[in-house]
Amino acid sequence: MLSLHRRHFFLAAIALAAGGIALTGAGRDQGDPLPSWNAGPARQALVTFVERVTRNGSPGFVTPAERIAVFDNDGTLWGEQPAYFQLLFAIDRVRALGPKHPEWNAQEPFASLLKGDTAAALKGGNHAIMEIVAASHAGITTDAFQTIAKDWLATARHPTTHRAYPEMVYQPMLEVLSYLRANGFKTFIVSGGGVEFLRAFAETTYGIPPEQVVGSSLVATFEAGNGTPQLIKQPKVEFIDDGAGKPAAINRFIGRRPIAAFGNSDGDLQMLQWTAAGTGERFCLFVHHTDAAREWAYDRTSNVGRLDKGLDEAKARGWTVVDMKTDWKAVFPAK
Amino acid sequence: MLSLHRRHFFLAAIALAAGGIALTGAGRDQGDPLPSWNAGPARQALVTFVERVTRNGSPGFVTPAERIAVFDNDGTLWGEQPAYFQLLFAIDRVRALGPKHPEWNAQEPFASLLKGDTAAALKGGNHAIMEIVAASHAGITTDAFQTIAKDWLATARHPTTHRAYPEMVYQPMLEVLSYLRANGFKTFIVSGGGVEFLRAFAETTYGIPPEQVVGSSLVATFEAGNGTPQLIKQPKVEFIDDGAGKPAAINRFIGRRPIAAFGNSDGDLQMLQWTAAGTGERFCLFVHHTDAAREWAYDRTSNVGRLDKGLDEAKARGWTVVDMKTDWKAVFPAK
Repeated sequence: MLSLHRRHFFLAAIALAAGGIALTGAGRDQGDPLPSWNAGPARQALVTFVERVTRNGSPGFVTPAERIAVFDNDGTLWGEQPAYFQLLFAIDRVRALGPKHPEWNAQEPFASLLKGDTAAALKGGNHAIMEIVAASHAGITTDAFQTIAKDWLATARHPTTHRAYPEMVYQPMLEVLSYLRANGFKTFIVSGGGVEFLRAFAETTYGIPPEQVVGSSLVATFEAGNGTPQLIKQPKVEFIDDGAGKPAAINRFIGRRPIAAFGNSDGDLQMLQWTAAGTGERFCLFVHHTDAAREWAYDRTSNVGRLDKGLDEAKARGWTVVDMKTDWKAVFPAK
Repeated sequence: MLSLHRRHFFLAAIALAAGGIALTGAGRDQGDPLPSWNAGPARQALVTFVERVTRNGSPGFVTPAERIAVFDNDGTLWGEQPAYFQLLFAIDRVRALGPKHPEWNAQEPFASLLKGDTAAALKGGNHAIMEIVAASHAGITTDAFQTIAKDWLATARHPTTHRAYPEMVYQPMLEVLSYLRANGFKTFIVSGGGVEFLRAFAETTYGIPPEQVVGSSLVATFEAGNGTPQLIKQPKVEFIDDGAGKPAAINRFIGRRPIAAFGNSDGDLQMLQWTAAGTGERFCLFVHHTDAAREWAYDRTSNVGRLDKGLDEAKARGWTVVDMKTDWKAVFPAK
């Protein structure tokens, strides 16, 4: 017979093993598909939209093939403070590679990073960030990058919540993903993040397969030579999937105009505009970070995830704005 | 009571109306999923592969999520002689636009095209082709382009077969698409053709939705201004999805390595190499155009769809090579 202590341990292990399933299956078998949403205008607007486009014979009915929903990732599906999580990954990667690059001790932004002074390293602005991205994301095969990203996602911990990053997804948004899919929607990520980094966790965490992930990318070159064919990631930006790049990427990758779009920052505004400009029922939503106690509170002046023009346009056009503090019963999944 | 003549007319009209369904649903409800394939090594290799990857408990079993199959389009799913059909579309478009561009009468390649001398127009090589592509594909919205392309596909006729172009798809390949999908595969087009041109017919003709079509593209820019947001196609190549570009595009758009790849030319060779280089069961196939009586016969020296290195590599590596003349009972769908 197990002692109480050992039983707790076993239960915790089982809960951990079931984590991936629990995350993506949340709410699927329950009466309420959105249990983490308080009753209120945001929840009501979403449910009304879904009922209108799925009710056969309704004037707003949309065939399943056209039920395309697009989601930003950073700040919409998971956290983005104190910095984009992919940047934290890149910095950790530079530190892990440090011993192999003695020359970095005399070369910024690497020297500061290796000394532990991230703020000094980032003083170099976009150029410094590109140096960090190139050093951490390029010069390796796409296969090797997947392994490195997955290892980091499984082991790294957020500096203040001490959660693994895939546990910093928003439980209410996981429920929205499941709810839409249960209603015949195809869900896509359209993110400024790197597409290969996103794919390292999107399927297990969000239930979104790689072919439904759109993101920024570096050029990858095919090299066959005499050995095994490989794709090598190059230190050269191919595409930045942000701002006006998002509608262009939706056109290029998805080829249909979405009927629902979810974002949280001005970088998502054009994606919502493009979605709203189609004919028939449309749903546009901004997640507004208003909860300093349970997450972070920021909007018009934030360097990360600034929501300024978007907030005005949402109010002017009647788009849905989620007030995290009042609309969400929980922010992160229960541990 | 209908006269015999009127009955024939009615039956023909019904057959025409059902065309789209018949094309994509071919073989689905029949005992033989590949009725247009003769018994032989090509058919046998395909069936053996599908049985191996789908039989639960088989050492070659592949989960449905990983059953990705990629198809080239020109020369693999539909014809490509005497020139890529999209080039014929572009030339027709230039001629339709001629009256609005009096300056073209003194400007090559347009002057020759407007005089009906395509050969002279194309003497300008790639530069001439890019001028024709820009004039016919750019400077309009993505929505307007869809309408123009669909109109052409519905009305234009091939110069020698006099078929509409969507009726120049290969019936045996339609059966392969249906057969793979019935076995849990997700089917993608990975073509050198323009992605928006492909999407104008891929869903109705092949049953492949826009989000599973990968192709070449022009840059499209998002313009909101004060009016309705639009995506404007620019006269600037964004990406050419051919040769070594195909594995890179598969990585960027699909994010998984295919387990089956179908092509017909050296431009598909790297896609097949990339597919073959994965672990586990793989299937690579080249369509070899050997049937001058029912279609066209060409390979090592053709300007369109050259198959030279690919033919050697297929033989060396045991890939499947379809001999159209002996392997296919029919080439095009019955009219």
